[in-house]
Amino acid sequence: MNYPNGIKKETLNHYTNYGNRGMNLESDLNTTNEYYRTIDKAYIYKKPTPIKIVNVDYQSRKTAAIKEAYFVEPSTTDYNGIYQGKYIDFEAKETKSKTAFSLDNIHPHQILHLRNIWKHKGIAFLIIRFSNLDFTFLLMAEDFFNFIDNIKRKSIPLSYFKENGYIIKNKLQPRVDYLEIIDTIMEVSYE
Amino acid sequence: MNYPNGIKKETLNHYTNYGNRGMNLESDLNTTNEYYRTIDKAYIYKKPTPIKIVNVDYQSRKTAAIKEAYFVEPSTTDYNGIYQGKYIDFEAKETKSKTAFSLDNIHPHQILHLRNIWKHKGIAFLIIRFSNLDFTFLLMAEDFFNFIDNIKRKSIPLSYFKENGYIIKNKLQPRVDYLEIIDTIMEVSYE
Repeated sequence: MNYPNGIKKETLNHYTNYGNRGMNLESDLNTTNEYYRTIDKAYIYKKPTPIKIVNVDYQSRKTAAIKEAYFVEPSTTDYNGIYQGKYIDFEAKETKSKTAFSLDNIHPHQILHLRNIWKHKGIAFLIIRFSNLDFTFLLMAEDFFNFIDNIKRKSIPLSYFKENGYIIKNKLQPRVDYLEIIDTIMEVSYE
Repeated sequence: MNYPNGIKKETLNHYTNYGNRGMNLESDLNTTNEYYRTIDKAYIYKKPTPIKIVNVDYQSRKTAAIKEAYFVEPSTTDYNGIYQGKYIDFEAKETKSKTAFSLDNIHPHQILHLRNIWKHKGIAFLIIRFSNLDFTFLLMAEDFFNFIDNIKRKSIPLSYFKENGYIIKNKLQPRVDYLEIIDTIMEVSYE
């Protein structure tokens, strides 16, 4: 089907999706993880949001409605799964800042969790998107710990990501191909 | 402190806990996983219950209250984590039946998930408790698939667990020491 000026619908859609990329890292990661599952590459899921349920209306079993619940602090990171037989675990965050990523965005429990995973030889990292710069970085847990253990600052400057992290290139599919980075790192460190 | 008949409080408590064992597998597993974390053996968590949030009252940021939400079908199993650098994944269920475990208790999505994990060399299994018999079994995913792929029945009889599964012995700590079984199996198959 042709649109005005001869632009095909497909092209338009791709353009639109591509333009929205910076808007929502979570949605991009969900699409990416779904793609990895479709091609049988990895099985990585976002954990459900942890909540404390206080009151449930059990009018009918099939339609039990939660009437009162509260968000609780997560004790782990949001994403985990399996890749090439290995345990993979990461936290993903977006920041609007153009200069630094504030450490307030990551709960102490999540940092401790990443330390434990890393110590037990899991593949642990952060995915941080500077949405106003359209940069998405992967920072391996080890480099994250090097920063927080040695540099007493409340935020990680963009320059640290540029020097120690890896830029995840924008792609149409998968949107955020973080396993491409992990492949490169694993080739170096695991073999 | 001494109690009537000279029974120490500690003994009483242990007895009480021990006696309640059959009551709640989920609670026993939470205690067990917490114990594994405390001794730095494994990092395995129960995933939060997946829900779809419809309405949130944002009166204050700290006390956002969920006013309407619904339970949604899980797309994965409830438990996953890392053990000896490997990805571990399982589903846990209790049944009151004394003769069989109904397959209605496990969602098709969860079965597919276990197949994917197993195919990708994760450690995948079921923990099934027959609470009225005080038996808790670990059934490796491979043996579970052998049943559902070859035997067209809607429930797995107790005898199948006895022949193909492993009994997880009752203990005080950890309550449900399933990694003891995994250790034995890994020694045989992974080395």
